[in-house]
Amino acid sequence: MNTRERILETSLRLFNSFGEPNTSTNHIADEMNISPGNLYYHFRNKGEIVGLLFQGYERRMLELLSASESRDLDVEDMWLFLHLAFEIIWDYRFLYRDLDNLLGRHRLVRRHFQRIMRRKTDTALSICRGLAKAGVLRASEEEIDSLCRNIVLVATYWMSFDNAVRPRDTNPGNVLGRGVYQVMSLVAPFLDGDQRVLIQTLGRRYIV
Amino acid sequence: MNTRERILETSLRLFNSFGEPNTSTNHIADEMNISPGNLYYHFRNKGEIVGLLFQGYERRMLELLSASESRDLDVEDMWLFLHLAFEIIWDYRFLYRDLDNLLGRHRLVRRHFQRIMRRKTDTALSICRGLAKAGVLRASEEEIDSLCRNIVLVATYWMSFDNAVRPRDTNPGNVLGRGVYQVMSLVAPFLDGDQRVLIQTLGRRYIV
Repeated sequence: MNTRERILETSLRLFNSFGEPNTSTNHIADEMNISPGNLYYHFRNKGEIVGLLFQGYERRMLELLSASESRDLDVEDMWLFLHLAFEIIWDYRFLYRDLDNLLGRHRLVRRHFQRIMRRKTDTALSICRGLAKAGVLRASEEEIDSLCRNIVLVATYWMSFDNAVRPRDTNPGNVLGRGVYQVMSLVAPFLDGDQRVLIQTLGRRYIV
Repeated sequence: MNTRERILETSLRLFNSFGEPNTSTNHIADEMNISPGNLYYHFRNKGEIVGLLFQGYERRMLELLSASESRDLDVEDMWLFLHLAFEIIWDYRFLYRDLDNLLGRHRLVRRHFQRIMRRKTDTALSICRGLAKAGVLRASEEEIDSLCRNIVLVATYWMSFDNAVRPRDTNPGNVLGRGVYQVMSLVAPFLDGDQRVLIQTLGRRYIV
């Protein structure tokens, strides 16, 4: 790995651990045992690092969203899809932790984040409409609209919420598992009996 | 209004407009045309102001939660209750806008905010169980649990989400109306036909 890549990797790790607002370029250089000058040779400022990390996040998320739109998913696929989405969110959790603050300061990140939120909503719409067409999900078009808005909202803010109400359990498997279950529980009441029970059964192991 | 109260009122207004992290005690003093020394005569630091404003928020929210727990609510009462809750959230929206950041810096606020989240969840549980007992809401105990978690999550992060996806429409009536509708749409699928249609009808005016 060259210095540039190491700077990105170290920044991501520090941002995720301590929050982006609390991590300066000096911290990053210090952690890597390089001079601040060396860091500035590779990046103009912290904003540029944030922008590049965001691009990495965006690329992975768009790949996942495209993959899920290219074919019809059933309820168990949806479960898997959500796990993959939450893993990406976890890898870039610093973005989600200080979201308002970050979007307020980085115009480019804000525009792209808004675009990703719309893409996520579109993906959720296409999955839910697919399930409705297959007769698995029963909801009016308006209900599907508000359902998909709630899916994106709960997925986006899950880690902040979980961290606020259960700050002690930071085990990634538990945090993400609970998040997937919360999102699936939005969909459950629109499914027919068997599928609804399946979600409760799959979800039970996350409820402690 | 004495100087102390005017400082609190001015701080709340500036925090709500520009965000608490972007508002210094100097801004507050400047806005009031008083000296920073005069401000420091009344408050040790900005943290003390934030703490007192939070107490005002907490008092109003706890009052509302107690009122709603003291009697059985029907679906239309719930609508009204959510409107009142969202009005309080709007009046203290700076708390919600930089929530992670704020909770990370103010230990006392964090502890109290966690307590309020638990109280909100308990209130939601007691309302939903009441509706279930009256035969209006059909859900298992586990479904009610995850529903109430989602109710508190959507209500807590609604304004951040709405601001991220629709930054242009900041009319309070619209923002709050959409929030109430999103929360009601979480409950709707568990209600029987008439009540479910009622929510869609009441909600239609918020969907633009």
